Amino acid sequence: MKVSIVGATAYTSLELIKILVRHPEAEIVHLGGRREGQPRVSDVFTSLRGVCDLPLLGMLPEDAPEKPDVAFFTLPHGVSHEHVPAYLSAGVRCIDFSADYRLNDLAVYEKWYGKHSDPGNLGRSVYGIPELFRKDIAGAELVANPGCYPTAAALALAPLVKERLVNAGDIIVDAKSGVSGRGNKVEEASMFCECNEDVRAYGVAGHRHEPEMEYVLGLLGARGADVTFVPHLIPMDRGILSTVFARLVRPTDQGDLQRLFESFYAGERFVRVCPAGEQPRTKSVAFSNYCDVAVTVRKGARVVVTAAIDNLMKGASSQAVQCMNAMFGVDETLGLF
Amino acid sequence: MKVSIVGATAYTSLELIKILVRHPEAEIVHLGGRREGQPRVSDVFTSLRGVCDLPLLGMLPEDAPEKPDVAFFTLPHGVSHEHVPAYLSAGVRCIDFSADYRLNDLAVYEKWYGKHSDPGNLGRSVYGIPELFRKDIAGAELVANPGCYPTAAALALAPLVKERLVNAGDIIVDAKSGVSGRGNKVEEASMFCECNEDVRAYGVAGHRHEPEMEYVLGLLGARGADVTFVPHLIPMDRGILSTVFARLVRPTDQGDLQRLFESFYAGERFVRVCPAGEQPRTKSVAFSNYCDVAVTVRKGARVVVTAAIDNLMKGASSQAVQCMNAMFGVDETLGLF
Amino acid sequence: MKVSIVGATAYTSLELIKILVRHPEAEIVHLGGRREGQPRVSDVFTSLRGVCDLPLLGMLPEDAPEKPDVAFFTLPHGVSHEHVPAYLSAGVRCIDFSADYRLNDLAVYEKWYGKHSDPGNLGRSVYGIPELFRKDIAGAELVANPGCYPTAAALALAPLVKERLVNAGDIIVDAKSGVSGRGNKVEEASMFCECNEDVRAYGVAGHRHEPEMEYVLGLLGARGADVTFVPHLIPMDRGILSTVFARLVRPTDQGDLQRLFESFYAGERFVRVCPAGEQPRTKSVAFSNYCDVAVTVRKGARVVVTAAIDNLMKGASSQAVQCMNAMFGVDETLGLF
Amino acid sequence: MKVSIVGATAYTSLELIKILVRHPEAEIVHLGGRREGQPRVSDVFTSLRGVCDLPLLGMLPEDAPEKPDVAFFTLPHGVSHEHVPAYLSAGVRCIDFSADYRLNDLAVYEKWYGKHSDPGNLGRSVYGIPELFRKDIAGAELVANPGCYPTAAALALAPLVKERLVNAGDIIVDAKSGVSGRGNKVEEASMFCECNEDVRAYGVAGHRHEPEMEYVLGLLGARGADVTFVPHLIPMDRGILSTVFARLVRPTDQGDLQRLFESFYAGERFVRVCPAGEQPRTKSVAFSNYCDVAVTVRKGARVVVTAAIDNLMKGASSQAVQCMNAMFGVDETLGLF
Repeated sequence: MKVSIVGATAYTSLELIKILVRHPEAEIVHLGGRREGQPRVSDVFTSLRGVCDLPLLGMLPEDAPEKPDVAFFTLPHGVSHEHVPAYLSAGVRCIDFSADYRLNDLAVYEKWYGKHSDPGNLGRSVYGIPELFRKDIAGAELVANPGCYPTAAALALAPLVKERLVNAGDIIVDAKSGVSGRGNKVEEASMFCECNEDVRAYGVAGHRHEPEMEYVLGLLGARGADVTFVPHLIPMDRGILSTVFARLVRPTDQGDLQRLFESFYAGERFVRVCPAGEQPRTKSVAFSNYCDVAVTVRKGARVVVTAAIDNLMKGASSQAVQCMNAMFGVDETLGLF
Repeated sequence: MKVSIVGATAYTSLELIKILVRHPEAEIVHLGGRREGQPRVSDVFTSLRGVCDLPLLGMLPEDAPEKPDVAFFTLPHGVSHEHVPAYLSAGVRCIDFSADYRLNDLAVYEKWYGKHSDPGNLGRSVYGIPELFRKDIAGAELVANPGCYPTAAALALAPLVKERLVNAGDIIVDAKSGVSGRGNKVEEASMFCECNEDVRAYGVAGHRHEPEMEYVLGLLGARGADVTFVPHLIPMDRGILSTVFARLVRPTDQGDLQRLFESFYAGERFVRVCPAGEQPRTKSVAFSNYCDVAVTVRKGARVVVTAAIDNLMKGASSQAVQCMNAMFGVDETLGLF
Repeated sequence: MKVSIVGATAYTSLELIKILVRHPEAEIVHLGGRREGQPRVSDVFTSLRGVCDLPLLGMLPEDAPEKPDVAFFTLPHGVSHEHVPAYLSAGVRCIDFSADYRLNDLAVYEKWYGKHSDPGNLGRSVYGIPELFRKDIAGAELVANPGCYPTAAALALAPLVKERLVNAGDIIVDAKSGVSGRGNKVEEASMFCECNEDVRAYGVAGHRHEPEMEYVLGLLGARGADVTFVPHLIPMDRGILSTVFARLVRPTDQGDLQRLFESFYAGERFVRVCPAGEQPRTKSVAFSNYCDVAVTVRKGARVVVTAAIDNLMKGASSQAVQCMNAMFGVDETLGLF
Repeated sequence: MKVSIVGATAYTSLELIKILVRHPEAEIVHLGGRREGQPRVSDVFTSLRGVCDLPLLGMLPEDAPEKPDVAFFTLPHGVSHEHVPAYLSAGVRCIDFSADYRLNDLAVYEKWYGKHSDPGNLGRSVYGIPELFRKDIAGAELVANPGCYPTAAALALAPLVKERLVNAGDIIVDAKSGVSGRGNKVEEASMFCECNEDVRAYGVAGHRHEPEMEYVLGLLGARGADVTFVPHLIPMDRGILSTVFARLVRPTDQGDLQRLFESFYAGERFVRVCPAGEQPRTKSVAFSNYCDVAVTVRKGARVVVTAAIDNLMKGASSQAVQCMNAMFGVDETLGLF
């Protein structure tokens, strides 16, 4: 698989490059960026020296020295949709890291993200969580790589929602994220002395991953999903732990839930259900494509699901590669760990 | 005020000593510990060298070189109740950091903490949050210094519960705590390499601060309080951020709630209501007695309250000193900051 | 003592304000800043809400609502010297946090910091480490508050240099600093994800605190001081640990050195010599004015001195207050801890 | 290559297993541990669930289900030499992570580590830094995997020592290590609240990696090497930055040194010489086998070399795999990154 990465200077691009250079069946043929003078990507991310020294070329399909089979777009929301259509037209399959093709409802998109310049392709995109939408991904020309928070929430809730065990209209997601979730923009709120020894909530009045969660719960069969989502920033580099609270709609005990989760994710290499009594930890999934989940009944009526992922990996770059594997019909776990 | 500290080698004792040596009207006359050979407390906590070099004597009232007016007990749950009665009998007013005198229901206590050897004094104790129970504290012989998590939850919920604005039977408290909340016991789960770059939930199946929260909500007038409490450990030394989710029982808008909180805490030096749109941060209250809170309405029906405290200060030692000030009729803010 | 703080929005100003509001004999009468619309300082540093809500006025002496006795300048290098002369002329004693009045050699200053607009006052300033230059500080109109790195190095080396026990021409200072040492400028190198889980040297080819160290060693009696100084950034908020390597010029054993240091600093409340076998830790001096030092002989010929301070306190704000106390003839430890 | 890991519950074993399960030509056939009831290694390190679920069997050669080609010993100093001889006798090539076979001088070993039960094999072992001792490693039956600190120091000093450019009798190594360097023993000094927001020196009076450094410098041709080594613990998980100070014995400028280092390490994939003006960072080498180095001349006479490695990787597990590759004649970079 010949690969293009468009927008190659985000934290997620760095992770993506590290995965792809070790992937046995992928080859990066083009890095597109916006830097003056076509520096090597390893001049921007010095940890790549000797690992990947490709130059940052232009971001158009014709800037690629060789035609890619697939292009990853690690661009901000609102920028991707200016670049994706040209690649699709050139017959290149696309995996977009931004929110631009995640929601199929243009009105919801524009409420949270602003004007969309490529609404025609909204209906064509597939939401890229392989464990939940594998078949659709296999045939897709355009995959919308999910947000980090929605990935953890969806994997935490999928067994409960598909079995209609919980009231989808009364869901709370309290998420804790490492600071890399903010990206590499130089801002006061991302400074070490502002983040270290601190925890704070943000987006409390409404975060754009909330409608995305409700949308995914809809894809899983929920009607009238209503999620109250509150993310928090905690002093670590990477990782998300989502704590999901839902109300059971029929009596269910701890054993039932444990069995449900284990059978739902049986055969999934990258989702590990914790044994009863254990809790997921972000450290156990850091630098990997794993999502660890645990389910707990409280006082018979409420269920608490915790899910841990690496926000840059299963929450972004490694999940995108998992999608690529699924799209090209190779072993889905290839090059992942 | 002549002060005795019984159990002087906990993290909370260290903070308490640092506060009291600077308190203009308090004097430590006795440190009780269990160490061989009566070492100085500054041999145990070397940061106290030159600050407080008193020896660690025995833990009985008669071990005090001088009769104290008040004794602080920084002992573990289940140990305090073996020492408090002797001090009370000797006419010393007591402030206990453990859970031993917090709950007035013996059965609930014994379910979570084991056998109680001094049940007779349960009914005599006053729950020590001055902002909520100031008058009772003033006259108390025995103050139960609250748990760190219940302090944050109670201050977050008090305005809503007292105004009967929320359904007390449907409360979720998701708390994030620094590692000092685990105390200074040498355990694998407290090691740097287990905590750093990690976040995990614990006590998900039930934590003993949950009944304490329900008890305090009862003191505030709630009937049938039902709290689902999930604490998390995050990689920082100190601080708790509690995110509290409740359902409004009547239509209330953001402005109403903001005004309610501001008027409820008007005149309280140590509870600061964030201006609308701002969120509390643990860093802003670290090393202080402050509790910062913010209230947010979501979609008209749910309210999210966030509250930040320093778990070792407002969640333990400085709150105990605030109680002491209230008990002895001096300015409640004396020696605090 | 009526106090003005000129340049009140640095990290060091925040610490200075926190100290001064609790100081029993100081009163802040004027905060000078550069912000539009004279916001309150607590709008800039929200942790000051209810602690200090003074407005940020202009930076000139005539902007002060009341004439101060002393002015602190927490301005960058190269800016202080534009403001200090007016205060001196107005009869206000000055304590400058920048490097502008630290070096008495104009050529050295201008090599490292650029053009000096007030060279006339260079000879008038006193270097503000009270433990070493107490008498001069008492009479000074203008105190140059030392750099954080030179403070730790000078206190580590003073006993050895004054006793001419080491070769001042062969000194190595390897320092490790928390990120607050970089100040609160929003820069890529200060971002959480760039600093966390990382350590790096900087200024290896030459750092401007190196000539300052050589200058102070000269003040202590050394001739031809030659210091190789390499600072490092480590992932913590505050604190400096300096590890100083020197060569002994005559045979000296561990006991001799331990006694020398203990007697040199006998009576100094804020310099604590560690007992033999113990090492200073930044955590033990954090949020305090203490400097902890330890001295160790290696193989008879080399001596290693380690010194720990809080860079924002003894390395900046609390040391400045210690100087103020000395200048005004009150107990030097007043308001410090 | 069939692999045995003896002592499979150290932090270094966890890393080693993660590398080997992804190595294209290695297969773990035996994990030896000391746990009751032969638990799976993934019950001890839950992050290995689904990655490696082998049981922890006995530690003897005959406990291996299949005869290994090579055995790694991740045992403490003083324990390895009780297990290595049996494997050597059974014709298994050995790579030992402890210090037991690093020093060829029995007296020096026993001074620092105590009685050696297998002195006969001391002379047979090869010191395992492939960049420096590649040929010897290729033919070795027994490789002593180097200490983390000596690895960084040796790679920093090798070009200077081999060219006799510095005085080997006057070397200072100031090292900063993440907490994983302490191993996973549950001790007070390793607790989060003791390490976070702190930096401290340890082993100042003498650390056992100091004679190891002097020994390696001897292997590189230095006579009378005299190293003053001071390690520090800093608040991060992994990584070592060593700052090495040496005196030049003949005039050498920055360009000369830069060229020397670049040519010395030309062709070495895992040692990267920073371009002039850049400094190595532990974050850039974390989770990899890289060592990044920079060299700087100071005032003509002193040279400062900084070297960054991941202490668990190039300082332990990945370097051991690099040695294994060299021993078995496969591409030395296989399975490494």
